[in-house]
Amino acid sequence: MLEIEVKCPVEDIGHVEERLISQGARFDKEVSQEDRYLGHPCRDFASTDEGLRLRREGDRVVLYYKGPKLDKLTKTREELSTPVPDPRSMYLILQRLGFTPVATVEKVRRTYHLGPVEVSLDTVSGLGGFVELEVQDLHLDVGRPMLEEAMKALGLERTERRSYLELLLEKRA
Amino acid sequence: MLEIEVKCPVEDIGHVEERLISQGARFDKEVSQEDRYLGHPCRDFASTDEGLRLRREGDRVVLYYKGPKLDKLTKTREELSTPVPDPRSMYLILQRLGFTPVATVEKVRRTYHLGPVEVSLDTVSGLGGFVELEVQDLHLDVGRPMLEEAMKALGLERTERRSYLELLLEKRA
Repeated sequence: MLEIEVKCPVEDIGHVEERLISQGARFDKEVSQEDRYLGHPCRDFASTDEGLRLRREGDRVVLYYKGPKLDKLTKTREELSTPVPDPRSMYLILQRLGFTPVATVEKVRRTYHLGPVEVSLDTVSGLGGFVELEVQDLHLDVGRPMLEEAMKALGLERTERRSYLELLLEKRA
Repeated sequence: MLEIEVKCPVEDIGHVEERLISQGARFDKEVSQEDRYLGHPCRDFASTDEGLRLRREGDRVVLYYKGPKLDKLTKTREELSTPVPDPRSMYLILQRLGFTPVATVEKVRRTYHLGPVEVSLDTVSGLGGFVELEVQDLHLDVGRPMLEEAMKALGLERTERRSYLELLLEKRA
């Protein structure tokens, strides 16, 4: 599934939430997510622009693979996922295959729907507040203007192309 | 779990089944298994003595990892497995990570119990008939005579130490 998304760092996430609500956005859910990122045994994901992670959300664990970004402005990329009913065994298998723990990103995510755009208000441990805007299953030239319009409606200007993982690793270094 | 097993190639698997039944063996089940073996992006499983496969048995798919044999005498090795509720996505993720299809072993397996020995009658696509005899959780010097006795009772003489995957790859080459 193709997803088109953009991420904006924000100082005051509560302020964005107020604007969202005043725009008639529909609140979906608040979840706590733990993303355990893994390194490849013989490929440098940082330079290939890929990612592999096990995401825990409550009791549910999902394995995600993200392919390289397909264009410059948005973060469009291939995303594959599969539920992991036995996370311990899956993690052990990945370890035996040479995948190594890189970092764990923890965040609280509050999700809204603003028309066709999914808006996530993320509070990320060690990094602060971010707003992620996303549309799915649309052509890039249809989806991109939708994101730009939503950004305008929410007063968002700056974007951040680096992932939370990249930001966390850069902050550490 | 320690498993002691031996595999015997047979010309006429129906004949072995008749002898099994006449010896009072108890039929357990017939299953159709498809093992899709995968190669590692940067490790030669043939030389590291590891294995990775997706096994389909009916509607159920399981990912298996087998580690190297731990000693010279027995075939003791670590085996890890995890159910795969979304096989298509899991296979795609493995492909994106550089795992490559090596071969698929398809077989119909009819399993019997002859006293403490589990007897599997395997009809393997492209390879023919085999009988696998196995006992579990026993010392080698207790289990091995049991297998030898069962072989005698079933009129089996030849044994085959290579795996179905190895046999299939050798036949191809």
